[in-house]
Amino acid sequence: MSGYTSIWLEDFEAGQHAVYGEHHFTREAVLDFAHKYDPQPFHLDDEAAARTHFKRLSASGWHTAAACMKLLAAWHFKIRADAEARGEPLPALGPSPGYQNLQWPRPVYPGDTITFSGTITGARKMNSRPGWGLITLKPEGHNQHGEKVFLYDSTVMIACRGNTGT
Amino acid sequence: MSGYTSIWLEDFEAGQHAVYGEHHFTREAVLDFAHKYDPQPFHLDDEAAARTHFKRLSASGWHTAAACMKLLAAWHFKIRADAEARGEPLPALGPSPGYQNLQWPRPVYPGDTITFSGTITGARKMNSRPGWGLITLKPEGHNQHGEKVFLYDSTVMIACRGNTGT
Repeated sequence: MSGYTSIWLEDFEAGQHAVYGEHHFTREAVLDFAHKYDPQPFHLDDEAAARTHFKRLSASGWHTAAACMKLLAAWHFKIRADAEARGEPLPALGPSPGYQNLQWPRPVYPGDTITFSGTITGARKMNSRPGWGLITLKPEGHNQHGEKVFLYDSTVMIACRGNTGT
Repeated sequence: MSGYTSIWLEDFEAGQHAVYGEHHFTREAVLDFAHKYDPQPFHLDDEAAARTHFKRLSASGWHTAAACMKLLAAWHFKIRADAEARGEPLPALGPSPGYQNLQWPRPVYPGDTITFSGTITGARKMNSRPGWGLITLKPEGHNQHGEKVFLYDSTVMIACRGNTGT
């Protein structure tokens, strides 16, 4: 895997791209997540799913989002851990003002392996909060056939260089 | 609980509101979800969380979204089940073109009980797909202090009356 290794706002720039990793959706995990969090027939039952636009049992969109988050977070926190191991100061962690354009263009089926990646689409300092900036990040998921199954636009507050929050 | 009981596009109208139910976030569930899907320090570790804007350990935003989905889906499928029990035909199930404005204005902490509700903000027939329409729905979550902790704008394809998909 290759990709950006930015941690401070000043390190981020539009166009940076990283492959966060792959997630394999087992039938068991698809059913387990749906039972717990998204009990709709097309996520729970083969026969009911066959009668819908999904054609067959598919993963909850929130399951796909959560699997993406896991790999995205692991990517970003691995970069922080590497910096920490080098004895470098770490940026303060900021919240997300929100996400836009959360979409699932195709179903994720049990047995699918989704590759999650992300592209930085913008980075700027906040006028309203000294020491902080905003990055926009577009995470995406593609299945083993190269088809896009998931995307959204994320905005996250990132500390400017030197803002360690202490 | 009271609220709309719409299943066909023609039954939905802006302003309809339903309380889907409550979800209690235990510390165990918050940690379990974060380990599985959102391994960021402020969702995993008390000490790390204390050093962030969250002040203390908080639930993954995707955990909150998933808990909302569970109650929202249960609400809508209970209405379908009730119609089915009365021997009525059921609408075909359509996909969601996507979600907008996914926001977490305040953290959800272990021990919080979140009440999830939803308001229909629009309903219209699709010109491009006979037999189908689009509703817009704004799900929200409020904590036990009445503070809004979660919201988004959802668009879902809903069958027009008589479109059972068969």
